[in-house]
Amino acid sequence: MILEGIVTTLDSHGEINVAPMGPIVDEAIETLTLRPFKTSQTYRNLKVRPCGVFHVIDDVLLLARAAIGQWDTQPTTFPAEKVEGAVLASACRWYEFEVVTVDDRDERTTIEASVVHRGWLRDFFGFNRAKHAVVEAAILATRLHLVGREEILKQFEPLRVIVDKTAGQQESAAFELLEGYVARAHETR
Amino acid sequence: MILEGIVTTLDSHGEINVAPMGPIVDEAIETLTLRPFKTSQTYRNLKVRPCGVFHVIDDVLLLARAAIGQWDTQPTTFPAEKVEGAVLASACRWYEFEVVTVDDRDERTTIEASVVHRGWLRDFFGFNRAKHAVVEAAILATRLHLVGREEILKQFEPLRVIVDKTAGQQESAAFELLEGYVARAHETR
Repeated sequence: MILEGIVTTLDSHGEINVAPMGPIVDEAIETLTLRPFKTSQTYRNLKVRPCGVFHVIDDVLLLARAAIGQWDTQPTTFPAEKVEGAVLASACRWYEFEVVTVDDRDERTTIEASVVHRGWLRDFFGFNRAKHAVVEAAILATRLHLVGREEILKQFEPLRVIVDKTAGQQESAAFELLEGYVARAHETR
Repeated sequence: MILEGIVTTLDSHGEINVAPMGPIVDEAIETLTLRPFKTSQTYRNLKVRPCGVFHVIDDVLLLARAAIGQWDTQPTTFPAEKVEGAVLASACRWYEFEVVTVDDRDERTTIEASVVHRGWLRDFFGFNRAKHAVVEAAILATRLHLVGREEILKQFEPLRVIVDKTAGQQESAAFELLEGYVARAHETR
């Protein structure tokens, strides 16, 4: 199963990188298969320091910000318990992991990791159509360079309908952030 | 916020009805606004016995079965604690509620309910694109009589792509069940 969440890693200076990630997980979430691109900060960090924290989240504004790398303020974190890493305070649950193997023969790498510690902060909200529309929009936004602005805005349309029907403030703000990002990206191309 | 889940109610003979429902909830999930149609079993049951159980679930096969009313075996339940009702054993969390007001002037009713007891069974999995694709497909399947088969099958196509990419066995089975339902519905029209 693919579980969409957020990975934090530390660079060689201890700076926190926050990245959306959809690892393949086993049912008990004891192992993670991460597939970051070689060009990503997550990959570079895991090569330097082979550990990190995977988070199950329902805060889609955080997810949207992580997807496009736009922060008003850095998200609140606290130190991980068993690995050198940072836990997002607004997560539902977190999974501290250590890298077991790295296969980086391809541009998109395959990193097998083992969960060494887990923690629980609060319940995941549950199914909300707007939250998932933002997840889809965030994934689309990260494909801007591949898919093109017009096609992405077209695919945003049915998602916007769902957001308008079922969103709370957080989901509306997240969707607007992504729409603005895609719109502005065009202007600077 | 709209929270998509499942409501169980009892009829006058004590038989359990299992229905998908997307109530409006407050942040703490202390109140539920349900909007069942007057033609629904949930509405009829709540008129006879003004209480029930709302469930936060991530089991999309259960959700798909509830949406189209097709069961191989009835889902496992246990008695609610504070109200006359049934709790789905495969739920993540449950909220026992009592009806406060019923506005049934329109065909689609508005029922305000107050949560009187809650229970926790297990964590919600988290964001999975296939699970949410099934949620969207289940909602479409319940609109078969309004939207028409061809249009629904067209809207299933992008959902099928997501399911193929990110599903586990449960999500694949749920999506196939809904596809089969829509396909067969045509034949009997």
